Amino acid sequence: METIKPCLNKVVKSEDETLSDSKRSYEVFNTFLIETRRKIHQNAESGWLEFQTTALVAERLKELGYEVKLGSEIVNLDFVMGRPSDKIVSEAIERAEANGVAKSILGKMDGYTGALGILDTGREGPTTVLRFDIDANDISERQLGSHKPYREGFASKNPLAMHACGHDGHTAIGLAVAETLMQRKSCLKGIVKLVFQPAEEGVRGAKAIVESGVVDEADYFIAGHIGFGVPKGGFTANTTQFLATTKMDVVMRGKASHAGAKPEEGTNALLAAAAATVQLHTITQHSAGLGRLNVGTLRAGTGRNIIADYAKMQIEARGETTEVNGYIVKRAEEIIRGTASAYGVEVSIEKVGEAVTSYSDGELADRIHQIASKCEADLIIYPEFKLGGSEDATVFMERVRERGGKAVYMIMGSEIAAGHHNEAFDFDEGVLVLGLKLFTEVVMDLNG
Amino acid sequence: METIKPCLNKVVKSEDETLSDSKRSYEVFNTFLIETRRKIHQNAESGWLEFQTTALVAERLKELGYEVKLGSEIVNLDFVMGRPSDKIVSEAIERAEANGVAKSILGKMDGYTGALGILDTGREGPTTVLRFDIDANDISERQLGSHKPYREGFASKNPLAMHACGHDGHTAIGLAVAETLMQRKSCLKGIVKLVFQPAEEGVRGAKAIVESGVVDEADYFIAGHIGFGVPKGGFTANTTQFLATTKMDVVMRGKASHAGAKPEEGTNALLAAAAATVQLHTITQHSAGLGRLNVGTLRAGTGRNIIADYAKMQIEARGETTEVNGYIVKRAEEIIRGTASAYGVEVSIEKVGEAVTSYSDGELADRIHQIASKCEADLIIYPEFKLGGSEDATVFMERVRERGGKAVYMIMGSEIAAGHHNEAFDFDEGVLVLGLKLFTEVVMDLNG
Amino acid sequence: METIKPCLNKVVKSEDETLSDSKRSYEVFNTFLIETRRKIHQNAESGWLEFQTTALVAERLKELGYEVKLGSEIVNLDFVMGRPSDKIVSEAIERAEANGVAKSILGKMDGYTGALGILDTGREGPTTVLRFDIDANDISERQLGSHKPYREGFASKNPLAMHACGHDGHTAIGLAVAETLMQRKSCLKGIVKLVFQPAEEGVRGAKAIVESGVVDEADYFIAGHIGFGVPKGGFTANTTQFLATTKMDVVMRGKASHAGAKPEEGTNALLAAAAATVQLHTITQHSAGLGRLNVGTLRAGTGRNIIADYAKMQIEARGETTEVNGYIVKRAEEIIRGTASAYGVEVSIEKVGEAVTSYSDGELADRIHQIASKCEADLIIYPEFKLGGSEDATVFMERVRERGGKAVYMIMGSEIAAGHHNEAFDFDEGVLVLGLKLFTEVVMDLNG
Amino acid sequence: METIKPCLNKVVKSEDETLSDSKRSYEVFNTFLIETRRKIHQNAESGWLEFQTTALVAERLKELGYEVKLGSEIVNLDFVMGRPSDKIVSEAIERAEANGVAKSILGKMDGYTGALGILDTGREGPTTVLRFDIDANDISERQLGSHKPYREGFASKNPLAMHACGHDGHTAIGLAVAETLMQRKSCLKGIVKLVFQPAEEGVRGAKAIVESGVVDEADYFIAGHIGFGVPKGGFTANTTQFLATTKMDVVMRGKASHAGAKPEEGTNALLAAAAATVQLHTITQHSAGLGRLNVGTLRAGTGRNIIADYAKMQIEARGETTEVNGYIVKRAEEIIRGTASAYGVEVSIEKVGEAVTSYSDGELADRIHQIASKCEADLIIYPEFKLGGSEDATVFMERVRERGGKAVYMIMGSEIAAGHHNEAFDFDEGVLVLGLKLFTEVVMDLNG
Repeated sequence: METIKPCLNKVVKSEDETLSDSKRSYEVFNTFLIETRRKIHQNAESGWLEFQTTALVAERLKELGYEVKLGSEIVNLDFVMGRPSDKIVSEAIERAEANGVAKSILGKMDGYTGALGILDTGREGPTTVLRFDIDANDISERQLGSHKPYREGFASKNPLAMHACGHDGHTAIGLAVAETLMQRKSCLKGIVKLVFQPAEEGVRGAKAIVESGVVDEADYFIAGHIGFGVPKGGFTANTTQFLATTKMDVVMRGKASHAGAKPEEGTNALLAAAAATVQLHTITQHSAGLGRLNVGTLRAGTGRNIIADYAKMQIEARGETTEVNGYIVKRAEEIIRGTASAYGVEVSIEKVGEAVTSYSDGELADRIHQIASKCEADLIIYPEFKLGGSEDATVFMERVRERGGKAVYMIMGSEIAAGHHNEAFDFDEGVLVLGLKLFTEVVMDLNG
Repeated sequence: METIKPCLNKVVKSEDETLSDSKRSYEVFNTFLIETRRKIHQNAESGWLEFQTTALVAERLKELGYEVKLGSEIVNLDFVMGRPSDKIVSEAIERAEANGVAKSILGKMDGYTGALGILDTGREGPTTVLRFDIDANDISERQLGSHKPYREGFASKNPLAMHACGHDGHTAIGLAVAETLMQRKSCLKGIVKLVFQPAEEGVRGAKAIVESGVVDEADYFIAGHIGFGVPKGGFTANTTQFLATTKMDVVMRGKASHAGAKPEEGTNALLAAAAATVQLHTITQHSAGLGRLNVGTLRAGTGRNIIADYAKMQIEARGETTEVNGYIVKRAEEIIRGTASAYGVEVSIEKVGEAVTSYSDGELADRIHQIASKCEADLIIYPEFKLGGSEDATVFMERVRERGGKAVYMIMGSEIAAGHHNEAFDFDEGVLVLGLKLFTEVVMDLNG
Repeated sequence: METIKPCLNKVVKSEDETLSDSKRSYEVFNTFLIETRRKIHQNAESGWLEFQTTALVAERLKELGYEVKLGSEIVNLDFVMGRPSDKIVSEAIERAEANGVAKSILGKMDGYTGALGILDTGREGPTTVLRFDIDANDISERQLGSHKPYREGFASKNPLAMHACGHDGHTAIGLAVAETLMQRKSCLKGIVKLVFQPAEEGVRGAKAIVESGVVDEADYFIAGHIGFGVPKGGFTANTTQFLATTKMDVVMRGKASHAGAKPEEGTNALLAAAAATVQLHTITQHSAGLGRLNVGTLRAGTGRNIIADYAKMQIEARGETTEVNGYIVKRAEEIIRGTASAYGVEVSIEKVGEAVTSYSDGELADRIHQIASKCEADLIIYPEFKLGGSEDATVFMERVRERGGKAVYMIMGSEIAAGHHNEAFDFDEGVLVLGLKLFTEVVMDLNG
Repeated sequence: METIKPCLNKVVKSEDETLSDSKRSYEVFNTFLIETRRKIHQNAESGWLEFQTTALVAERLKELGYEVKLGSEIVNLDFVMGRPSDKIVSEAIERAEANGVAKSILGKMDGYTGALGILDTGREGPTTVLRFDIDANDISERQLGSHKPYREGFASKNPLAMHACGHDGHTAIGLAVAETLMQRKSCLKGIVKLVFQPAEEGVRGAKAIVESGVVDEADYFIAGHIGFGVPKGGFTANTTQFLATTKMDVVMRGKASHAGAKPEEGTNALLAAAAATVQLHTITQHSAGLGRLNVGTLRAGTGRNIIADYAKMQIEARGETTEVNGYIVKRAEEIIRGTASAYGVEVSIEKVGEAVTSYSDGELADRIHQIASKCEADLIIYPEFKLGGSEDATVFMERVRERGGKAVYMIMGSEIAAGHHNEAFDFDEGVLVLGLKLFTEVVMDLNG
């Protein structure tokens, strides 16, 4: 890969000619971006299982000269949510090993995924944190010729793991950004941190990373996403109206009994769960905004004539504000515990995911919009994009904000082959260079 | 009233001629029985409000020479269930006073009803307790010519109080029995107690009387009822299959709030009560026999757009056995408290009535069947009568039984004009003399 | 009452001196306004029972020279909602008669309330409709010295009827406006209609009036309210975010049976209503905005041991948009009918009130804000007031809008003694002259 | 196998010496019984999948000289309940073929299992039907040395199919009885039919066999069971109090939608099923006896944030009488359909099993008790055995009874290693000879 001119963006702002140089200088990364994205796509790993992906990221960051932290070094274990069973984690580690990941790296991770690269310029200046999510979805990829990843041979090799949301692209962008920034290190001041976050799907991973303190000193925080409803050629740094959300797994355990012969000897977990389910759907009315609750799955009982001793529910709450979501979660817990007690069954409520409500800092978003316009003249800038969905980047954003920093969430428009989380999802790889350029230019501006 | 031959029943057993004397000797009470019954019918008083009735009973017992205890003297206040509000009690006392009841008697009652007459022969012998219930139903009597009490001018003068179950007849029988027994005192040994119990309707009164110790020394206990599904000319002392039952009043108190503007500020007592109601109806399956639960009334809320802060339910549980009833009550309490906690509302559960399951002692019933056959040749004796209903005489019966005594519940068949508890209920007054004779003869045999 | 200078407002706009004349000219109505308001307050009549109030309005309009229509002349009977039983209506008519209302007027009303006054200038010009609501709330007024209407002797004489929302003031303003406009008839063109609407409480009356065609030709529609959260000295004509709402009364009828003896013979209306209630509270989630549902009252059953054959629920749905409200109402009907069928009970769903979502026309509101500023310099104008509540004036507003007219809803700030609908509600009567002035000046402008 | 003395039982009744001959004559079948039972045990096949078992039975009956009918010849397809999917049936046929079952036999079955052997003596006489059930349970057999079938090498080779109720023993007895009866054909008159019924588990198979007319001409019907709570050495022909039962599979299908983004576009099958579940448990109270309902399993939904479009419930109703069971089933259907309609989901209710209430004919039972006492002196005869469980033999029994015949259900006591339907179930094979002897002797008596 040829070396780009250092500190290019300094010049860019005034000279058109140099701009095209700059443009070209990003496009040399095209092959790297596509190859990296496809490699990650093919080795898709679900949340908290990204051992191979983490290793790939960590090795590259080290090669580039970053100080690197891994897995349990940046995960506060007290706040881990929705991690699969130890058995599943072990299998993922074994698979990574079988695929050539060094034992030394796996040992360093200590069962947890995610990586942090630190570029400390040694010069006084702001701390900017970039966040890229690295996990795949728990679905099996479409195996049909109409699906490009399959047709071109980079479909996921792993069952029930597919990059159906574009995080493979985010990871590839992150690694390319790591390179461009290191190349321009001499033009930068302050500190830049690149967080490669596990388990964004299900909004599970951010909390544990944030609680490790990784953004506690941040002046700026920037995360981004490909697609997300913004068409190709569109861009915004002013994403707002993230919904707060909490994901809960509820297990009720009663006592089995023959339903015909000894009905009074059973304690009925199925009936308790059914009663709770109906009542849970009554608790979404709040004056501060929209609320949502869904019991999405319910599995209970083992036989027709047995009083069920087991029931499991997967529940999701959302709120237009963190307050609304919190109210619904509190009411849900009351309903669940009260109903469990009404039926004499034991209950466990596990929080398996959580995101807060948030919004991009308007001033910082404006600044980024100006940068974007300059370096990509044709880009259609959306002054505001109301997301109406959930992302655990908000956990970073709110932590940064409450400590005095500024945070934005960028969306880089892309054509997509099918909806996010669909087994036929794919994105236009042209967006990768755009992402590289925008992240790089923004950091050059903030830490320049 | 002419004096009957003392100790008649001694002779009866061998001489046919004397038998008819005996018969005649009871029939002289016919006028007294009917007049007394009608007087009580006209002044019908509901449970725990029988001040006038209690006074009538007490005065007559005193006249006859009984040692008499009244109201709070035989009521254990800790076990009073389902007593109306103090205001309603006060109004009943005022009415009694207005109807001529002496202040001294009312004072002795001290707000509680019921009377006990004790005939102590001074001779060694068994203690026999007879129980007569004295309360009316909370319904208004039919005011139509087709209804005999109205047509003949002795319909209830009190709104929402009507003797629609025959307790007026029971009370009249009890007073006549008091007289025949006192006449034959010299032929008797041991002790005879006549309990005139308040508040049988709703199975409210027995518990408090029993807990005052009134049957703790009883060798025999006999209660009885007119009608109850046994046709005219029929009789049994072997009533079985009383259902155990518990009556509960449940009040839930939440917090009102404007349902449109501030739904999250309310705690919804109506919703909690509705949810509890549905779930309460699920708890009646038990291997030991039939169970019943009914939420009979539900009143909640004050306005359409207000989150309801108040709900009241009237509940009845029944069981084929005391165990089944107890199970249902326990489960009901769990459902109610668990659901209240699910909605954050306060709850009170008041037990307002209770009867246990019981059955007549077979041996004693046989002995009574023989007595009955002798003194009333045409009587059709039912060897067993499965009641399938509830009566709080069972609370006496089980207390007597557990302390080594024997108990029976007699049913004296009668034609009835409409079902028990119907506003057109009436019974054939011919049954009164039969009742007098049977109670008297049985005591003559047991304490003779 | 002295005659005011005609066409005053023509001059007002340019001359300060005349402005104070104008001001004074309204203040001469002060006594009339207060006396009229108090007379109506004292004779408070609930929705669809405003016979005396309607007569008072009609007679005054006639005196002033208006063409007057009454009761059934302006009520489309097919759309009457939430009218009390015939018995209650008859009693209200009898009371009106007893209070001196002429039989001829009552006959003309034919059982329905409300009045329309028409001022046709005979000159080409716009049709402007003003709407004043005339009904009281179904509550009993506070009888304490701390409550001014009681202290000063004009508290409601009628139990369960109190002007606790200010409609007495609205009616008084309407009658004063009728006078000022008639005085200035020569300066006006087009047609002015004054609608005195019954039964706004519970959003019951507007629909039937609108469906009689009374605003079908309107170019402008103006309604207004005293207080409503706007403080004294504040004013807006740009009220927005009315919530759509539907009020429903649901009656379920099953079959009674003895709950212990024959549970299978009953069909349980209480249980059906309880089950429906819980499920009804689950249906408010909608992507188009906030939704509300409240079962505010539930009354069911007659006795503890009887399977309930009757249940009644009072329900309110609301939606941030008419679509959301409509969705909730449709789902509510499905839940109610489905559940009734699940229990084999008969069900009737009566719509007893309805309002749609609406908003003031921005352009017309601006025009009114300018008028208001000119004639009352100190007035604090609110550019927009988001109501977040329901009012059936919206039914008029949307009808006018869909036929090409413009509609606004004005709020005239006032100090209030307690919240609207509270038994201690009272408003500062100073607002009455302000209301008179604003309505008059606006019509002078629109039809001038 | 040595030939037994024909018509032995004629003599038996008077001669003790011959009795022991008789006894010995049955014991020669011991090896056949055990080997046959173990062969069937090892090749356990669940209900409606007993292709190999049916073939084994059919071939043996043919060898013995019976007229044989198979599968669809004796199954009325309109009444088949709870048959697995075509795919599962095909796999079972393939397995049978792989295990050596002739295509010709499988072809004759035409996808349905069960066999009928007819022995027509050609002599005038009664028609007696014996019924043996042949299916296994849907559970996997215990693979531990403590479990005798595993230890001795005859545990089921098929996963999720195990003879855990003793039907392997019943089938073996049936085949031995077929042989003894054919040996004694010359001593018999009338017709004897041996029904080898599929799918007794889940009470699925009897109805379709009965509706083929197989017992329409029966004078006597005899079924039996090993174990069932009767200890070793015990016997009864007077089994009573069979519970009526109906098994139902309920599937609800709604419409999926994103629970956060478009809640109003989904129709929620999970919520409908949960609501139905709670309400279904309320319908068991009936004056005619105990009722039961259990929703034993509930599976619904695919993801936490998706409104569930699918739910499945497995339900069982039971009643002390056929009337009670029928009432509960009717109410269950009303609840399910009403609730489905409340949520706008489609519903299918499939009856997958059914048995009625029944009882042994007392007179015939007495006759059998006498026979049993004579041929097995030590047998402890239970005059009555109240089952309190369900068996679809009752469908045969009631059909026979309503057409004028007599029916009994015999229980042959046995020691068992674990409860029926437990993965460690096993019985003492000594009971097999007892069963052979009793069935044979009874037929010798009835048709002798």
